[in-house]
Order: sequence, then structure tokens, then C-alpha cells
Amino acid sequence: MKEITNIGRRRMLASTGGVMALAGLASVGRAHAQSAAPAAAAAPAAAKAKSLPAYAAWKDLNSVIVHSANTIETKRTAFGSGVITPTDRLFVRNNVSPPSADILNDPDSWKLEVNGVAKPRTFTLAELKSLGLAAVTVVLQCSGNGRAWFPSKPSGTQWTVGAAGCVVFTGVPVAAVLEAVGGMADGMVYMTSTGGEEIPAGIDPTSVMVERSVPISAMKDAILAWEINGQALPLAHGGPLRMIVPGYTGVNNVKYIKQLAFTKDQSPAKIQQTGYRFAPLGAKGEMTQASIWEMPPKSWINLPSDENKTVPAGQVQVSGVAMGGMTAAKSIEVSVNGGKDWQKAEFIGPDLGQYAWREFVLSVKLKPGSYQLASRTTNEAGQSQPEERLENNRGYLNNSWRDHMVTITVA
Amino acid sequence: MKEITNIGRRRMLASTGGVMALAGLASVGRAHAQSAAPAAAAAPAAAKAKSLPAYAAWKDLNSVIVHSANTIETKRTAFGSGVITPTDRLFVRNNVSPPSADILNDPDSWKLEVNGVAKPRTFTLAELKSLGLAAVTVVLQCSGNGRAWFPSKPSGTQWTVGAAGCVVFTGVPVAAVLEAVGGMADGMVYMTSTGGEEIPAGIDPTSVMVERSVPISAMKDAILAWEINGQALPLAHGGPLRMIVPGYTGVNNVKYIKQLAFTKDQSPAKIQQTGYRFAPLGAKGEMTQASIWEMPPKSWINLPSDENKTVPAGQVQVSGVAMGGMTAAKSIEVSVNGGKDWQKAEFIGPDLGQYAWREFVLSVKLKPGSYQLASRTTNEAGQSQPEERLENNRGYLNNSWRDHMVTITVA
Repeated sequence: MKEITNIGRRRMLASTGGVMALAGLASVGRAHAQSAAPAAAAAPAAAKAKSLPAYAAWKDLNSVIVHSANTIETKRTAFGSGVITPTDRLFVRNNVSPPSADILNDPDSWKLEVNGVAKPRTFTLAELKSLGLAAVTVVLQCSGNGRAWFPSKPSGTQWTVGAAGCVVFTGVPVAAVLEAVGGMADGMVYMTSTGGEEIPAGIDPTSVMVERSVPISAMKDAILAWEINGQALPLAHGGPLRMIVPGYTGVNNVKYIKQLAFTKDQSPAKIQQTGYRFAPLGAKGEMTQASIWEMPPKSWINLPSDENKTVPAGQVQVSGVAMGGMTAAKSIEVSVNGGKDWQKAEFIGPDLGQYAWREFVLSVKLKPGSYQLASRTTNEAGQSQPEERLENNRGYLNNSWRDHMVTITVA
Repeated sequence: MKEITNIGRRRMLASTGGVMALAGLASVGRAHAQSAAPAAAAAPAAAKAKSLPAYAAWKDLNSVIVHSANTIETKRTAFGSGVITPTDRLFVRNNVSPPSADILNDPDSWKLEVNGVAKPRTFTLAELKSLGLAAVTVVLQCSGNGRAWFPSKPSGTQWTVGAAGCVVFTGVPVAAVLEAVGGMADGMVYMTSTGGEEIPAGIDPTSVMVERSVPISAMKDAILAWEINGQALPLAHGGPLRMIVPGYTGVNNVKYIKQLAFTKDQSPAKIQQTGYRFAPLGAKGEMTQASIWEMPPKSWINLPSDENKTVPAGQVQVSGVAMGGMTAAKSIEVSVNGGKDWQKAEFIGPDLGQYAWREFVLSVKLKPGSYQLASRTTNEAGQSQPEERLENNRGYLNNSWRDHMVTITVA
């Protein structure tokens, strides 16, 4: 039998309950997007078109759902079938409003402080570029992608599938930077990245700063990136410099990174201490609960998925994307009857490595009627998508195949 | 010893000379771009910025060189290091002005006639989409890319490196279409694609029509594509539907395809009969000469390559792209002294299959001075880039490593 799991399950066992608290980070105030954003409708089709914020004005409005100035989702029908998500359709999610676009006036002069190492120092981006070059394809996915399907209606953006994309980042391996500073100081356990967002005056910085710690094991494939999909990293995606931790949820890929530190403890920032924790329903986030780090295997169908459009009867190509999380997606099954029966689908197109997603397709003959299309993937580690989501207070890490089903009408 | 070759070499031996003729297709008249376009300067830095034609107005003007309305080149410094060429920087080359943008009003109703098969018929694009789904990453490259370095100054656009890009096309396998029409008729030798460009009245259609034949062996990995890099194929790149023949030069990837035919003979179109032939210097194109089909192995350095900018002394990451042609690029060497000494460079980033290019990098310490950076690749078939281009009358298939060198100043 396959092991049905996601990252949250074993962590949840180690988690403790806590005092009821609705918000976590969402209580921070004006600098925090979620507090300003009304929850959008769960289905993309029902979402109202809002205008794009200035820093993301170059996004393709027809391909996205603008939940708020800091939360923009890719439409399920807009992913395309080319594996790589076009940058102008890629989701945006900022925990704090982005810094001034002025930081991109001279990207090469951007400064990164490196601490917790043998020889702490500051690098300019130009200097970082001389240390090495690597490109890695990753699924970038918000921790709360799929939150819209939690019946507990957790606070936060009501993402369905579109707070995710598969993109190529280019930059310098963190390992190469570490080598240039003589290696890690003794006894370090975490790699901690600090974002360059402005902290409003009069606020405890730890309450809003975007500073995330991940285990140093995550450093292996991590890069400091200045390019996305072959273009200079725009402000909306963390330019001029962003930490990319392959396999880890979006929040761990710190934008506008200004400090990289190897640390003995996790960051004191609220976003690390009590935010992004796998808290039981009704419980507050606490350090004893699992941090939202690694992504579990997940897949969904993109085409056909437009519930407002009928599909002609006959041969139909059912296609979507499947990711393995920390290891590659190994196999993919599709059901056209809501998960009663499953058929093996086929991966198509290029394989961009373990942290990328794969395109898949099942060719199937459909008579007129209504069909519930579902998909489930198994990764190289033998982990499969579960049928049901794992409940948690903030609606993180939803990889339930049932939640991601789509109903189509064939006529 | 490695076999030093390119596709042209063995074909050239089979070629015959011919009457002196300057132009080939370039004499066709107003419908032909080259006749209107003055030759641009060989070096991108020297090219004057022209405005983009309406059908390509969405291109990033800072990243391209506009030679003419139908010939737009990617700047050498604008490829990025993310393997996939961003669509808004990808080169454009139309043999004939593109059809009206109206053909994209309802892409799914675009019609493709299929002939030379057991059961000839016409498919709409919507019907083609029901037959299968495949994604393939290819280097799309104009036959004349690198023409600027031919001392014979062949007519045609003076491309340096930027009439090429690595992109993901999505569509239906030609094999799946063929299966739907009961297979090929007996005795067919070529796969012939006809473009949907408008033929001006009063002109012999064969003199301007874009109709290209390739050997049926090329069908194996060929697709009929409606997406590029995850987005609906725009008019500039052949939307709504384009023939993609992986490994073959750009002209064989017929845009706006309206007919796919399996044929006993090559197309009677001028572009097939006498155009795109590997003709000896001073000779006219003839059927007895090799048609410009398969691409040879090729590589070049993209960064650093800006001759107007000095590079800081110290560690330098020398990076570029390497393609194998019909098989994958297997190894790559870099020289910093004009080809006197070579060092093995490293492939980085995702491997998108045999028809894609790979990013490569060599980390090297450079003192102040002038350096000639060169690269040469060897493919899985053991073919290497030659030092010198193979002369031919129209300046096709330049894969000389010497021509592609770039001189940088380190200070």
C-alpha cells in the first residue's frame, strides 16, 4: 500500500494546542495585506476583477485574480501547458507591502549582509554574481494555496489553485557564498533570511519583519536569485535579490533579502515564531508546532476546468500539473468520476528536476454528461496525495485530491 | 580525434555550383521583408533602435534589435541565464508579412487541411486539441543566424547570435494527427507544411508562398503547436497554429499552418526549390544542393559580452548557451584567449531535452586586460563546432566558434 501523507501529518502529531486566536500575522495592521483584503470568492469565475497594483501593473489581468494589492492569483485556466508559468501570470503574495521600486534603480549595488559565518561581511549583488551561477526550476507556492476549501474558513486569502507556479530562478548557490566567507560558524542550525521591507515607525520590528528560518539542510539546493524565467527579478517577485529554498513554501523564499544569517535559533520574528505554524483548529500558532516549510506532493487538473463552458463530447485531453514536493512526482492518476475509479495518466514535456512540476495528460472518451475530474500524484519517496485535507487553523498545505476536483459538463 | 563537422559539410560535397545570383528569395518584392530592410550593423551595440511593428509591439524593445518590420533580433546580453528565452525577447523573422491579426479572434476555429493520407480531411484547431497533447523544448533558430560574420556579405538580415531562442511549444503530436486520418498514403517521402500568409494578387503563388518540405523522418518529434512558453501562440510566432520540427532551422517551422501534406516530392514553392539551399559562394540555389534542414551543434557566450562595459578583475563567471542540434549537447569548453587554450565548462540548470540548449558556466580568475572569450560544444553524436564557418552563398548555418567569440576588457 502507498503511504498516504503530507508534510503536515507527522508534524501535527508533534504539535500542541493553544489559546484560540483567529489571525496570527493578520493582526499586524496596515502593513499587512491580509488585514486589508476582503476574502475573495473561492471559485475564480466568481471573483470580481480588480485593478492591478502599480508594482505588478505588468501582469496579464486576464490571467489573474486580484484579491488585494498584495495577493494576486493565477486563474486555473491560465497556467497553459508549457510547464513553466509565464511570469506575467505568476501569483504574487507579499506579507508586507513591497519596498520602493527605487531599490531596482541599480540592482548591482544591492547589499547583502552575511552573518553567522567564519568571516562575516557584506556583498553587493555585483560581487555575489562573481561567486557562481546556478539555475533551478521550482514550484513556488504560497503556504495557504488551497485555503478556500477549508470548511473552517481560516483567515487569509482564499486561494484555490493559483497561488503557485513553476518557474526558473537563476542566481548564486548559497553554498558558494558560504565558501567565500569561510564556512558556517560553529553550532548553527538554521539558515535565516531577512527581507528588505520597510518597517513602519513605532512598531515592534519583530511583529512585521519578514525573517524566516529554515533548517540548514535546506541550503543544499538553495540559491540567491536575481533572475526569474530569464529576466531580472522584478519587485513583485523579490528583486533585486531573493532567497530561493527549493521545495519549501513561498514564505521561506524571502524577497528583497538584505541579510543571510546562519543561526542557532529560529528568527524572533512573529512570522517565524507564531506565524506559519501547523496549529490545530482553533489554536494559536506556537513554536512547538511544525513550521510551514517543506511542501507535500500535490496535483490538479487545469484543462478542462472552466465550469462555465461545456466540453464537446468525444475524445478529451484532461491535463494538469503534478509536483512531488521534496522529491520528484513519480506517477499520476486521473479520475473522471469523482475518485471512484482511477486511470494512470502520462507525464508530458520536459522534466525540469525534482522541485519542478510535471505536465500530465489523460486522453479519455467522454459522452455527454457531468464529470468530476480529479488527479492524485505519488512522489519518488512514495508519498501520495491524501483524499482529505489535514485540518489546521490557518488552512496551510492543502493537498487533498478531493478538494482540487473540478466538475465539467460534456455536451 | 573528434569529428569536426556541421550539417553543411557533407552536404556541400554533394552540392553543385550554379549561375551567380545574389538574392534567392530576396528578389520577390514588397511581400518580402529582406528587400525592404537595409542590412543592420554586425554588432548589436552599433544597431540603431527602430520601433517595433504593430504585431510585435509587445516585445521588450530594450532587449531586441529591430532590423526591419519582419526581422527582430534578441540582444546577446538579453538572453538571461534561465535556459528558456522569455517570449517578449524572442527573435522574430517572417519570410512574408504576417496575415491579419484577425486570424487570432477565434483561434479554435482555425482550419488545417491534411492531405497525402488515407482519409484526407480538415480539422479545426479545437478538433486538433482533442487528439493529443505534447510539450517540447526546442532551440528555434533562423537558418541565417550568424550571417553577419560571413566575409562574403551574403544578402539577408545581418544576424549575429540573436536570431535564436530556446522555448517550450505545446500542441498535438503530428503522429497523433496522422493516426486520426488513417496514416500516410503510400510512397510519401516528405512532410510538407503550408503557411497561411496572404499571397498578393498577380504574383505566381509559388514565388512567395511559405511552404516547406522536410523528410518524413522529422515527423517523429514534430508537433502542431498552439502555445509558446505557456501562452497562446501570438501572431508574431505563428499563432494560431505552427508546425514545430525539433532540431530543424526556423524556416521549417511553418507559421499559420493551413495545410499539412505528406508528399512524394518537395514543395514547388521557391522557398523550397531554390531558397534555403546550401549553395557554394556565388552560386544560385538549386534542388541538387542540400536544403537547410537540420541544425548543427553550436554555442556562444552571453555574459560577459558587452564590449562597451568593463568587467571587474577577479573571479568572473563566463556563461552562455550550447545546443547539440539533432542530439543533446554533451560537453562544452571555454577559452579566454581566443581559442589557444580550452577549459571544460559546466552545464547548469535544467536539462530540457535533446532539442533544447543548455546553460553553461566557467568560473575563472581574470587579471586586468583584454580577453577573447570563445566556446565550443560537442554533441552526443560526437560532432563538434568547427573553428571556421562553412562558406555558402547565403550565409546559412554558421556555427564557427571563432566567429562567435567576444572580446571583453577586464579592469
